[in-house]
Amino acid sequence: MKVEVCFSPALYPHYNIDNENTIVVVVDIFRATTTMCAAFYNGVQSIIPVADIAEAQRYKSQGFLVGAERNVKRCDFADFGNSPFEYTRERVEKKQVVLTTTNGTQAIETAMNCYQLLIGAFSNITSIANHCQKERKNVLILCSGWNNRFNMEDTLFAGALCKMLCERNFSPASDAANVALDMWQNAQPNVRSYLGRSEHLERLVINNLSDSVDYCLTMDTTPLLPAYDKGQKAIFLL
Amino acid sequence: MKVEVCFSPALYPHYNIDNENTIVVVVDIFRATTTMCAAFYNGVQSIIPVADIAEAQRYKSQGFLVGAERNVKRCDFADFGNSPFEYTRERVEKKQVVLTTTNGTQAIETAMNCYQLLIGAFSNITSIANHCQKERKNVLILCSGWNNRFNMEDTLFAGALCKMLCERNFSPASDAANVALDMWQNAQPNVRSYLGRSEHLERLVINNLSDSVDYCLTMDTTPLLPAYDKGQKAIFLL
Repeated sequence: MKVEVCFSPALYPHYNIDNENTIVVVVDIFRATTTMCAAFYNGVQSIIPVADIAEAQRYKSQGFLVGAERNVKRCDFADFGNSPFEYTRERVEKKQVVLTTTNGTQAIETAMNCYQLLIGAFSNITSIANHCQKERKNVLILCSGWNNRFNMEDTLFAGALCKMLCERNFSPASDAANVALDMWQNAQPNVRSYLGRSEHLERLVINNLSDSVDYCLTMDTTPLLPAYDKGQKAIFLL
Repeated sequence: MKVEVCFSPALYPHYNIDNENTIVVVVDIFRATTTMCAAFYNGVQSIIPVADIAEAQRYKSQGFLVGAERNVKRCDFADFGNSPFEYTRERVEKKQVVLTTTNGTQAIETAMNCYQLLIGAFSNITSIANHCQKERKNVLILCSGWNNRFNMEDTLFAGALCKMLCERNFSPASDAANVALDMWQNAQPNVRSYLGRSEHLERLVINNLSDSVDYCLTMDTTPLLPAYDKGQKAIFLL
């Protein structure tokens, strides 16, 4: 089995995705996919990812709970922003939540033609690796990036997951996968300090949102497998 | 001044290019831009880059000298392939040459809206760095990649040029620039051996074309500044 890394949703069309044989793992570490995992951990029933604000507003007017963020800030009309700490058990348990974010939800829309579309974060990384090993499919890790540009934190996650998969009989499919592996290696032993230079960390710090950074970088706090269901157009636990 | 790195022509539209203030350096180490530099070193008068084979064939039927390569192999109708060693003084001095390659010439077509579009390779890297310092413009290094996917060798060049520019009062603009810098650092002291895993090196080896690899990785053998002239739709020396 092969593990491939795609650095941006804008590059995804240039990869050969076999929709019988490729599991796509979408990642947006800061913070969409980390937040989704947290919401499922707190009992959310499903998450409806939508790419644009207008659609999120329509859901809101129909009475849905809505999370909406652009450029790290919560949109005024929304119930939640994009912090994993907002999606508490009290607020989300057994509920449906609609979510739109700057990058992560677009990446999900981009990646729909595949065998399975999983939501990946450091917080569920080992569960993802074990599942991929069991499924014996090729894996493509789709980094959400920032406005379609490369970012460091999603690629670091890709490197970490590549490493786990290489320990489970996968091999790197490409230069991109090898470079992600190198980055993960470079980032040891202190990933937080390696990310000191990252653009998005800077954005979070400027907006007083860095309280969730350590959480976003901690492994296996939410050992669950959220996956997108094409039929129902929503994310459920597998 | 800032130095930015773009990993693929498909990502270029997502960067803000200020066509008054951005120098774009296009690179395709294996081998289009290295070959262009070699041809200028051997006295070629100009190179007309064309993105598709049909256009190259039209030029050929009009009597032009034509270089044409797809997937590392020379196209049957062409005078040259994509090896820097084919463009000898005997064959190219004072001549116009039309060139189409799998990735490099497409990258040039993509990048046309900028202050200057320079052709970069390890073989002219110091000349490029000195020129950018003198111009005092922002720099974007556009990696040609492989069929719009990320590749290692162009990113390594980007890292090397970033490093030279950071020693000349530039700063890295983004995560991509920082990761390219890290890759260049990782690749020391033996770039050839670091590239042992690269997909394209493997392609060249399989096709018995690895004789030019060391040449493509050697710095400053052709200290020249080829630049694309929008008006004349051709590359000339600055």
